[in-house]
Order: sequence, then C-alpha cells, then structure tokens
Amino acid sequence: MAQAAATGYDPRTYEPLTFHDAAGRFRMGDDTPRDFLERCLATIEEREPVVQAFAHLDRNQARAAADASTERWAAGEPLSPIDGMPVGIKDLLETKDMPTEYGCEAFRGNFPRRDNAAVWALRQAGAVILGKTVTAELGGSHPGPTTNPFDPRRSPGGSSSGSAAGVAARMFPAALGTQVGGSIIRPAGYCGNVALKPTQGGINRGERQTTSMSTHGVHAGCIEDMWQVAIEIAKRAGGDRGWPGLQGPSTTPEPRTPERLIVLETQGWDDLDEGSKEGFAAVLAQLRELGIQLLRRRDDPLVETLEGVISNARDVCNTITDWENQWATRNLVDQHPDGVSERAKAALAHAEAMSVDDYRAALIVREVAQEAHAALAGSADAIITLSCPGPAHVWLGDEPGAPLAPRPTGDPVFNFPSSMLFAPAVSMPLMSVGGMPVGVQVFGQPHEDAGMTAIARWLLGAVEPVVVG
Amino acid sequence: MAQAAATGYDPRTYEPLTFHDAAGRFRMGDDTPRDFLERCLATIEEREPVVQAFAHLDRNQARAAADASTERWAAGEPLSPIDGMPVGIKDLLETKDMPTEYGCEAFRGNFPRRDNAAVWALRQAGAVILGKTVTAELGGSHPGPTTNPFDPRRSPGGSSSGSAAGVAARMFPAALGTQVGGSIIRPAGYCGNVALKPTQGGINRGERQTTSMSTHGVHAGCIEDMWQVAIEIAKRAGGDRGWPGLQGPSTTPEPRTPERLIVLETQGWDDLDEGSKEGFAAVLAQLRELGIQLLRRRDDPLVETLEGVISNARDVCNTITDWENQWATRNLVDQHPDGVSERAKAALAHAEAMSVDDYRAALIVREVAQEAHAALAGSADAIITLSCPGPAHVWLGDEPGAPLAPRPTGDPVFNFPSSMLFAPAVSMPLMSVGGMPVGVQVFGQPHEDAGMTAIARWLLGAVEPVVVG
Repeated sequence: MAQAAATGYDPRTYEPLTFHDAAGRFRMGDDTPRDFLERCLATIEEREPVVQAFAHLDRNQARAAADASTERWAAGEPLSPIDGMPVGIKDLLETKDMPTEYGCEAFRGNFPRRDNAAVWALRQAGAVILGKTVTAELGGSHPGPTTNPFDPRRSPGGSSSGSAAGVAARMFPAALGTQVGGSIIRPAGYCGNVALKPTQGGINRGERQTTSMSTHGVHAGCIEDMWQVAIEIAKRAGGDRGWPGLQGPSTTPEPRTPERLIVLETQGWDDLDEGSKEGFAAVLAQLRELGIQLLRRRDDPLVETLEGVISNARDVCNTITDWENQWATRNLVDQHPDGVSERAKAALAHAEAMSVDDYRAALIVREVAQEAHAALAGSADAIITLSCPGPAHVWLGDEPGAPLAPRPTGDPVFNFPSSMLFAPAVSMPLMSVGGMPVGVQVFGQPHEDAGMTAIARWLLGAVEPVVVG
Repeated sequence: MAQAAATGYDPRTYEPLTFHDAAGRFRMGDDTPRDFLERCLATIEEREPVVQAFAHLDRNQARAAADASTERWAAGEPLSPIDGMPVGIKDLLETKDMPTEYGCEAFRGNFPRRDNAAVWALRQAGAVILGKTVTAELGGSHPGPTTNPFDPRRSPGGSSSGSAAGVAARMFPAALGTQVGGSIIRPAGYCGNVALKPTQGGINRGERQTTSMSTHGVHAGCIEDMWQVAIEIAKRAGGDRGWPGLQGPSTTPEPRTPERLIVLETQGWDDLDEGSKEGFAAVLAQLRELGIQLLRRRDDPLVETLEGVISNARDVCNTITDWENQWATRNLVDQHPDGVSERAKAALAHAEAMSVDDYRAALIVREVAQEAHAALAGSADAIITLSCPGPAHVWLGDEPGAPLAPRPTGDPVFNFPSSMLFAPAVSMPLMSVGGMPVGVQVFGQPHEDAGMTAIARWLLGAVEPVVVG
C-alpha cells in the first residue's frame, strides 16, 4: 500500500481524502470525528516515515479534540460544517499548545503558547488541530525534510511543504499554508492538491504580519473542504487588519462556467518541459471544445500590457520580500549566527545591498501591474496558467562543499504574478506528467475568491484530467 | 530648580532642549556628544524621581555610544546630523540591548534582544539610544507612573507618556512615540512638545505591526530635531511594508505660509473648557490678521461633509482598534490572567461582542472619511485644530474599589480624525491655559508630512504663543 502510493500519480484514479461528505455519516452515527481522526493517524503511521510532513504531531490533543467534536455531532450541535476536521498547520503559525519552529534551527524549541488568529478561528469552528506541518526555513527557500508523496526522491515544493504533502498523502483533509511568492500554489501543484491563495489580506494573519505580499491559504483534497475551511476562518477572524477579508457563501460556491479565460505566457514559460506544455495545451483544447474563448497577448492589447509589466515579476517580488524581511532576519542572525541557513543569509545580503528607493521602485512596479490587471476585469472571467513549472524535480539534499542549489523547493515563477497582483488563486489537480502531478491555476481580480472557487469547481467537473508520458 | 520647573508652563519663556544647533559646536570642538549626554543625565538625575519618564535607562550603554559619536565628530565624520543625539524609545518598541515591557505586568522582564526597524535605523544614524520610555499598558489607556513635568499631579497624556514628558523635562531632545488613536499628538499637546504623527505607514514599524492605524512618530523640543529624526529613520528603514514611507528634504523644510486653513469643529469641541476655547480663538485671530483665510463647516459644503463622516470618529476608531488587537490581547490574558489590566480586558470584551461585519462596517466608514478628506485637497493647505482637549487633567491614580476612570491618560477625541484619515499631523506648543501647555495641530493629506512640517515651522515663527488664565 505504501509502496503503491509512492509509485506515481494518476489524476483519473487518485482519490483524495475528503471531509465534507462525512457530515451526513456523523449525523447518522455511521462515523464519528474520532474514527475519522483514527483513520488519519493510521495513514500517518504508514506514510510519515518517508513523507515527513510533520514538524510536530500531537496525537493525544487531537484525540481529545476529536472526542469533544464527536459529542457535539452526537448532540446534533456541531460548531460548524468543519467541526471535527483534522487540520495541519504550517509551522510558521503560532499554536498555543504546540511549538512553533519556523523550520529554522534558531527557533528550535520555540513555544510561544499563543494561537495565531486563523488557528484560533479553526478551534472556534471545532476543527481538530492535528499538528504543525514542515515549512521551508522561515517560509523561504531552504527546504525541510518533507518528500513528495508520489515519489520520495522529488521535492514536495515549498515553503508549505508539509501542508501540501500531508494532504496529498491523505494524512489530513486540509491544512493551512502561507504564500509570499509561491508557497501555497506551487507545492499544491506539485502534490495534486486543491488550494486557495486568497486575495491579499483575505485571511487574518494575526501576529504573522511578515510581508506586504504574505497570505494565509488552504490546501485540501477537494474544493468543498478548501472553501469551507477558508470561509469558516474568515467568518470568525476576518481578514488582515485594515482589510475587509474573504467574503462569500457559507457553503462552497456553485460551479460557474467561464465565458472567456486569459492564458498568460509569463516568465518561465520558455523553460517549461515539453510534457507540461503538451498537457496544458490538451487542457486548453478541452476548454475550447467546451465553448470557452481563450485570450492571449496577441488577441488583446490589455493582455499584452499586463504581460509586459509582469515580465520581471521575479525580481520585483524578490526585491520587495527581501527588503521587508531584512529586520527580522538581521535580528535573528545577530542572535543566532549559526542558527540561520546560508540561503536566508543570502536574502539578507540582497536586502542590505538595496536602498529605500530600490524598494519604492519595486512597489511602484507592483502597483502599475495591479492597475494593468484591474483594466482586464471586463475582458475575461479569470486568468488560467500552470501552478508550477512542470512536475516536481528530484531533490536529494545539498551536496556538502558544492554551491547551493538556487531553488531546492522549486521555482515560484508561475506564482509571482498572482502574488504581486494580490489576486485570489485556486490550484486544481488537472494534469499529470511523467507520473507526477502538475497543477493548473485560475486567478482573478482581488476579492473574487468566491468567483474563482466557482470557476475552479466547474473546471474540476468539466475537464477530463490530462495524463502525459 | 526642580521646584521652579514644576510650577507651570509659559510658552513665551520655556526653553526646550535642542540638538540641531549643537552640530556647529561639535565641529568646533566646543562641545561633544558625550558632554551633551552628561547634561541630559544630570537633568534626568534631577527630574526623574518625580517625572518618571523611564521604564529603563542604561547610562553606561549611552555613554559608550556617545563616546563613539564624539570620536566620529572629532574625525569630521558623523554618520548623520543626528549622530550623538540622545533619544528615548517608547517601551512598545524592541531594543536589542534593553528589556521591552510594554507597560504591562505580563511582560515584566521581557528581553527579546531584537531591534525594531526604526531603532536599528537610529543606531545606523549614530543616535544614542538612551532608554525606554514609559508607555500606557500595551499602548492603550491604562496609565504608567509618569507625571506631567509642569505639574506632577497632572497626567502627561498617553500612551507615549514617557516620550512626551521626557522631552518636556529636557531629559532628551527627541523620542519615538507611537499613535493608534491619539498616543503621540495628545501627550505632545499636554507636554508642550513639537511632534510628528506621520502619514500612516510613514515610518517602518518593523515587528510591531499591531493595528491598521498604528504609526511610529517623533516627539521633540523643536521642529528641526523632529524632522531630522523622522527623515533619518525613513532614509534607512523606509516605511511600513508595502508603503512608500516618509519622503522629503534631508533637512527641515523651510517655513511655508498657508493661504487657507480649515478649522475643524469635531466631536469634543462642545465639552472643551472655556480657557482653551479662548486661547484657540486668539490663535485664529492672529492667523486672520496675518492674512490667512479660515474655512469652517458653514463656509464650504465639503468641510461640512467631512465633519459629518467623522462625527462618530471615536466609535469608529475604537471598533477598529479593539477588533484588531483582540487576538494579541486574548493570547496574553490566556497566558497571564493576572498580568493584564481591567482596562485592557474591557477592550477585549468589547471586541468579543462584535462580529466581522461590525468591523467591516467601521473600515468602510473610515474609507468614506478618507475620501471626504481627499476631496478637500484643493480647498485649503491644511486643517488646524487643538492637539488635546484642553490642559492635562489631574490624575492621582485609580481609587481602590471605585469604578475605573474612563480615560486616565486623557481623551483622544481631537486625535481620532487625523488617525482615521491616515493624515500627517504636527503638534505645536502655541498655547498655555492655566499654566499648562495646550497644543495646536495641523494635519494634511497623506504624504504631505514635509508640507505640514513646513506650515508648522511657519506657524511656530509667526504666531505669538497665547497665554490664558
């Protein structure tokens, strides 16, 4: 079974773990949150030695929470539709009953005994906080131990590595991730998740106000669980301070057929493997057959304009993020010179070589890009592109003495645009290439989270997953 | 001398401590940063037992920093015009070599060994970090021990109590404060400071991203020191993440004569004491004599519109701030039930009685108010009003067993408007009433920090300070 699970991915046969369909069974007494949890724990027992999704796992606390939920369901009084759902929490978010170590040696044993606002909201909704999932160090590029559940030689992506891999390995139906550049949508794409990177500010980050492009988001096995987790948090904790926060229906938006989609051919497209190009072309061919109009840069000068202003998205995003992180990283390096990776130190050095004006210039490019995106609101229902640059690469760790690999958790090149545009993005497992998942994403105008979810739900139903090579 | 200093305030004779005029003496070798510091320490020795401006004072670290600065000036290589300036840091901001206790029992002994971004920038500019100044608990309304330097029975205002009082008592020429509702401009008004509450996002708050209306700002004895401290920080650390940050000339903007000023008659005006009304009327009379046109709500429907949408500023600001603070406060109360004041617990209870939609509604009112303010950009050069509701009140502490006084550090009613408008505000010591300072403020459109400083500089030169009763 573990053998079979680790020998590749076929989107036509893979069955994700789902929770939304358990409510009926809980109500009838055919199943309980405690039993659901025990099945998760059995899967974890089986898969965790190779997948290594967890930074911290607390079976006893989870069992106590699941028992409390079981009682609520038995009494007919669940706190929400996700009452009893086991959820993984990326180890960048504080949890009052577990350590928070940020995947960083300097934070080994850090135990702040506080709940992040989103974690608090999950508890209010009755969710079972199962454990902390592995993050690349400080949400950056230095990887943790997690492997891809469909091939342990390959990266799960990052920085939300454990959240994506744990969902893929059916350890839990949903998990929280965070994204600055591409830390939700890319690992979701590599691991065959459904995932939501909300509109900037959509989910309250609580104490973790790291950068101006950081968002909390949701990894899940299915779109129903994805939406339900997001909206239950937003109902209780709202968005980031000063933002209205995610809004939409209390249950998953109904599928919506788009009339027109914009196909972006951004930075990164030229380097894409042939299999992923072929697979994405096959997805687009299906969409055309379904009567959807596809717009590209040659079809619309506004698309051409957007492509132009985001053509350097990588540098813009790295300039903004490295600058904004510099005080936190500098303090950490000052306190723990040996507790921070060379990759994080390189990002700090990048920031220290900048001036305030370099940062301001990048902010202005970002604002111009947002204006160019806003101008497309009437042209199409969404933008469609890949979630990741092809299937996850083989990653066997740094070689001692060799120069550091530049992007061990993969390249966020297909994620920088939606991040810098503050756009809500949904990743869908619509392709496999060489036996590995390759996600497809749609993203839209800020605050269209529900709309993107509705379009993604339609795509998930209407598009036959594509298998290449 | 201490006796004399504590028997009242006369703006015509009070001489603030200034630093900008010391540079010439440092260059000539007639004075040194170390000698400047020693004079500050002597004043502290004399005044601190009654004023109680400091939460933490480190004479030795300050002396070492002043000696290093003395060497730089002697070598003709100061790091900036504020190299050697002793600066107080409000004890909400982390300093790597001093505790940070937030005026809160739960944080007694807290020593995070990190520098806030603005503190880091001050060190880069050569400033001498003299100590941590008393803040009302967590930047809220529960007061610390600081007394008003002009009458120890009276409040210095809050929450930047120690920064305002220490500047007033000539303990240091400048200090950092922070404002959410009225925590810079009000205590500055009560203590006869010059002070800048910058445009929202103007000065990098670093790790302290508490609420969507929080800003770092500067208290000083004179406008030159105020501007120089602000711009030296902004040059090095920029604004908050995602904001362009304070911009303007490298030295204090030249005085600028306004043509038209809007006189706001906001919430709080009706309850103002007669002396303050009389004093402010006398200031306005001088302005009219100087040829400045004054606009009020009856003169301009756009002013009337703004007055209307900010008429409930207190509730709007308290709704936003209490909601945004709730997760931090709840975590703190969970960990330290006895370490948090009843006043902070009441703010948490206020937040817990709200829904996300209550918060969203307040954000929308704030945005509408910002639109109404933006519409006035062409109507006048600035808005003028009082910094505080009259002179500081007598505050002798809570009475055991009695209900808690609602606003022991004073009422921010004259500060909510500029806070919710994200407007740059400058407080000027232009009045005394009954022997106590009453500040006058100008505020303008976002990003007009330099312009407001220029207008304030002109007002400070052109208006004869008014003494009432």
